[in-house]
Amino acid sequence: MSRSSAPAVDVVVVGAGLSGLAAARSLTARGHAVRVLEAGAQVGGRTRNHLLAGVNVDLGGTFVGPGQDRILALAHETGCDYHRTHTTGQSAISWRGTLRRYDGTVPTLGALELADIGRLQLIVGRIVAGMRAGAPWETKNAAELDSHTLTSWLRSRRALASTHALFAIVAKTTWGCEPDEISMLYALDYIRGCGGLDRMLDTEGGAQQEHFPGGAHSIAVRMAEELGERVTVGSPVRRIEWRDGGAVVHTDTESLDCRAVVVAVPPAVRGSIAFEPALPEEHRSLGQRWPQGVLTKIYAAYERPFWRDRGLNGQVLSDAGPIFATFDTSPAPDGPGILLGFIGGDYAREFDRLPEHERRLRALSSLASMFGDDALQATAFVDQRWAAESWIGGGPTAVVPPGVLTRYGRTLAEPVGPIHWAGTETSTEWAGYMDGAVRAGERASHECLAALRAVVA
Amino acid sequence: MSRSSAPAVDVVVVGAGLSGLAAARSLTARGHAVRVLEAGAQVGGRTRNHLLAGVNVDLGGTFVGPGQDRILALAHETGCDYHRTHTTGQSAISWRGTLRRYDGTVPTLGALELADIGRLQLIVGRIVAGMRAGAPWETKNAAELDSHTLTSWLRSRRALASTHALFAIVAKTTWGCEPDEISMLYALDYIRGCGGLDRMLDTEGGAQQEHFPGGAHSIAVRMAEELGERVTVGSPVRRIEWRDGGAVVHTDTESLDCRAVVVAVPPAVRGSIAFEPALPEEHRSLGQRWPQGVLTKIYAAYERPFWRDRGLNGQVLSDAGPIFATFDTSPAPDGPGILLGFIGGDYAREFDRLPEHERRLRALSSLASMFGDDALQATAFVDQRWAAESWIGGGPTAVVPPGVLTRYGRTLAEPVGPIHWAGTETSTEWAGYMDGAVRAGERASHECLAALRAVVA
Repeated sequence: MSRSSAPAVDVVVVGAGLSGLAAARSLTARGHAVRVLEAGAQVGGRTRNHLLAGVNVDLGGTFVGPGQDRILALAHETGCDYHRTHTTGQSAISWRGTLRRYDGTVPTLGALELADIGRLQLIVGRIVAGMRAGAPWETKNAAELDSHTLTSWLRSRRALASTHALFAIVAKTTWGCEPDEISMLYALDYIRGCGGLDRMLDTEGGAQQEHFPGGAHSIAVRMAEELGERVTVGSPVRRIEWRDGGAVVHTDTESLDCRAVVVAVPPAVRGSIAFEPALPEEHRSLGQRWPQGVLTKIYAAYERPFWRDRGLNGQVLSDAGPIFATFDTSPAPDGPGILLGFIGGDYAREFDRLPEHERRLRALSSLASMFGDDALQATAFVDQRWAAESWIGGGPTAVVPPGVLTRYGRTLAEPVGPIHWAGTETSTEWAGYMDGAVRAGERASHECLAALRAVVA
Repeated sequence: MSRSSAPAVDVVVVGAGLSGLAAARSLTARGHAVRVLEAGAQVGGRTRNHLLAGVNVDLGGTFVGPGQDRILALAHETGCDYHRTHTTGQSAISWRGTLRRYDGTVPTLGALELADIGRLQLIVGRIVAGMRAGAPWETKNAAELDSHTLTSWLRSRRALASTHALFAIVAKTTWGCEPDEISMLYALDYIRGCGGLDRMLDTEGGAQQEHFPGGAHSIAVRMAEELGERVTVGSPVRRIEWRDGGAVVHTDTESLDCRAVVVAVPPAVRGSIAFEPALPEEHRSLGQRWPQGVLTKIYAAYERPFWRDRGLNGQVLSDAGPIFATFDTSPAPDGPGILLGFIGGDYAREFDRLPEHERRLRALSSLASMFGDDALQATAFVDQRWAAESWIGGGPTAVVPPGVLTRYGRTLAEPVGPIHWAGTETSTEWAGYMDGAVRAGERASHECLAALRAVVA
């Protein structure tokens, strides 16, 4: 291995998503020389901006809410303002062919159906309350919970079909998967990291409470601007030669000698980098077992947020698809009106394969079934298929199958020699969210600081 | 993309395991120019030879049996002889601390325990009989079966603890996993591909009926010898640029222009190659969801097969570990005696981390609990940890989690432009076995032949 006596930089960060940038920012603030190498054409990772009908829309991470302290602090520090998500008016649920409106957070379903959902929510809440952050394998009955998918667990609890259907909507939005793909223990630990099911799903008081008029992506852009020439885009890291105390990071055009590396890409993407020597067995096995979900987001723009006139707040849940959850992210009541729609799991797998004009048609028809035929008259439309992004591997986050968390959870963020792991998936709080990305980046930076101090001492 | 008017070869084969070599052999026999690029230091993939106490032992694929027509034909054609696996004497089972001997294939357990195992075997057999090769998603209740792990399915069928324990041994040997990691539908389809549970598990009349005195690895070696300079080892393929009708395959030292590519590596390893343009979304998602098992094999050599004197045939099942299944692969009754032991799933995860001398100690102690203290006096010992092989990714084969086969099964062997997929995992018969590897290689070669003909026409 080529090794100069003075490394080019202290730390190389692989990936310029929120997590990698937060790590680089923290290290730079403490006086360390850092380079950030991004494979894709732009910074921001799973945050991305698009100008739709003159309005900034977030094609990736969008919302923030209470408890997400690190992303909120970073938003303040980088001068990115956020405001309340629009909730005035009634929500609606399209359920077995009927569209019903409701107030508050509980959809209008039959009494039996609601009772069963409440029963299962209670059980979930009780298990989650007994979980310890960073140690889901210590949960009571952890092995049994990890042997179940969400589907097989609901079946073992004799959940009604309606409860299965509602949890399917939750799985599609939250993880971009169907309930038969995900470990029950992983789902529970994820809910724990959000502070519970309500906080995860709610708009007011929950993870969808606020969003950024200038785009959440601007947080990444501001950090990258601060870092300046330290950040290089369009520069995939192909190979990392590592030893105790240092590494050489190879792109197609550079070989960077450094003392530590922060790999800030999703676990499923780690395998696209050739590590020399190879990573330990459990790290490579983990990389095969931590897939990303399949989530697609669409935005449709209208002259005005016409649904507001009809008393609707723009939030609709649907069991019909392809769009199964919507939000109103219009900047102002007098226009333009912006609807955000989520397409995930099997709906996204089907939708993503369609040509562009059919995707638009399908998405607008889906909105029309919720908001009436006016929804067909979009002035502009955009979609973002996260599973089609080769350097990202899917979104919004990882969908861990049964039997993996209990065996490989301890390995996920465990450093290997000079290599440290970031990315929202490695956070113990708000994993999968922008907040988790920042937390993980800052944690990795602290690990590097300790390692760099140890070398000096 | 660099593109010469006359490609260097017709087909580049990535991976010189049995599958890649069988593809190359078939294409060469039909007059096509072929190159085989192998990342590792030797050919054979998951077959590998070791000389232990002067005896050839197979560190990987070992056994063959009835129904495995393609590997048997290839063995004949390459002049590799095989003979019956030793079965004279009694088998034994170490179960909850007691070692019990038995004749035939049914272990001595309690009547209730045996009845419950029989009941579950019957259900498995009935479902398997209704499955169609290459279309597990058409199975009755396919979605439900694919929503279960083997564990959650057994629980839903109210299996006894002893039945869970026996199926755990099956999972460890067959897939290198625990029953809570694997989709029930995938497990059933795998059993179908073997012609049923008995054929999969039996020695006489089953998949362990014969083995190769000269080593199964010699089949790969003979094929590589035939192919001569067409095969290059130690040459990882880093990048494949592809278009309709052709590709350029890049290693660290060469760029090979060709008309078609056969990628003969496990699905979990496909992601280590950079495809340009990126593979379609469903292929990349599949690559994240098709992990390899964790299986380790050990061989211990003795002056003589001493267990035979005591009426034992060398086949012991154990619920204690780390070794949970053994075979006698001694070349002759007068010595040396060779015991083969399997270590899989969680036992292998723990075992693989130990230093060499501790691994030997643990393995021999495990054999001693089955065969008495004489087993501690090994004259030679070797182990092979397949999950520690970075270009192979684990063994013996893939462990597909719930929710994947119904969604991505159709994608597994689906060609992408000029790229065809081989490797035992892509076979519809005997997937995971040497026979499946040969079948998959030959199928991929036929696809290439059709594509090459189409270009000419």
